[in-house]
Amino acid sequence: MERKTKINAEDGKQELSIVREFDLPVDLLFKAHVDPEIVTLWMGTKVLKLESKKHGSWQFETSDPDGNVMFRAHGVFHDVIPNDKITRTFEMENAPFGVQIEFFEFESLGEEKSRLSIHTVFQSVSHRDQMLKLPFAHGLNMAHNRLEEIVKSL
Amino acid sequence: MERKTKINAEDGKQELSIVREFDLPVDLLFKAHVDPEIVTLWMGTKVLKLESKKHGSWQFETSDPDGNVMFRAHGVFHDVIPNDKITRTFEMENAPFGVQIEFFEFESLGEEKSRLSIHTVFQSVSHRDQMLKLPFAHGLNMAHNRLEEIVKSL
Repeated sequence: MERKTKINAEDGKQELSIVREFDLPVDLLFKAHVDPEIVTLWMGTKVLKLESKKHGSWQFETSDPDGNVMFRAHGVFHDVIPNDKITRTFEMENAPFGVQIEFFEFESLGEEKSRLSIHTVFQSVSHRDQMLKLPFAHGLNMAHNRLEEIVKSL
Repeated sequence: MERKTKINAEDGKQELSIVREFDLPVDLLFKAHVDPEIVTLWMGTKVLKLESKKHGSWQFETSDPDGNVMFRAHGVFHDVIPNDKITRTFEMENAPFGVQIEFFEFESLGEEKSRLSIHTVFQSVSHRDQMLKLPFAHGLNMAHNRLEEIVKSL
């Protein structure tokens, strides 16, 4: 099955870009990125903090059924413009991917259609290439599928 | 006269690196980056906000003698480790340089000597190249000279 979330990573660059179109109005697509309860549902992580505003910060954590932390990530919001842009930093703790800066753009393609574009810039080419060794494209596509289903069902 | 602050920017990359050695102990070099009064002196800008801690934020502004704002910049601190590291975002308002992520490293080279390394990553190669058209290397070298003189005289 074709993946709806497309990832483009040119050889030798320290950046990648992600594009996905959703059957959702742009305000709901944006809301799915800033509302802690909705983020919890589609990302499957505990949202410890999500201050989605200029100079705010965020922290996510996932534990296994025994309560052991499996994943922890955090960062800061450089800027947030509702239904338009989010610029934030991202760091997965205890992982070899460094600190990334991510530029999210939200675009309306009609009443029930919208596009999300994410431009991620890494500390180096090798940090990016480490990240690309993960089943990253598959995981993100699945998460975006969940996002669409969950928001439609709200 | 040879510049003590060295800037390295390889062709076609969206990053640059800056290195400078100071005749200062590392704790004072670090302090000169987080203490609002000292920053004001060597950067010559008004410090509106400088929360030098993980998930803090900062804002600088410079006005001409008539009170017109000439320069305004802001960003967030992804992380701050005293005498060791600062990771922050940087954006100059109304300028074509985009949002940058900056990695500062502070290193002791002895009781009265230390090294500052800054790795700056840009949104794109062209954003970086726009920035390099400014008298950037000269300005930063002058600012670092002032930093050293001011901190020595405290």
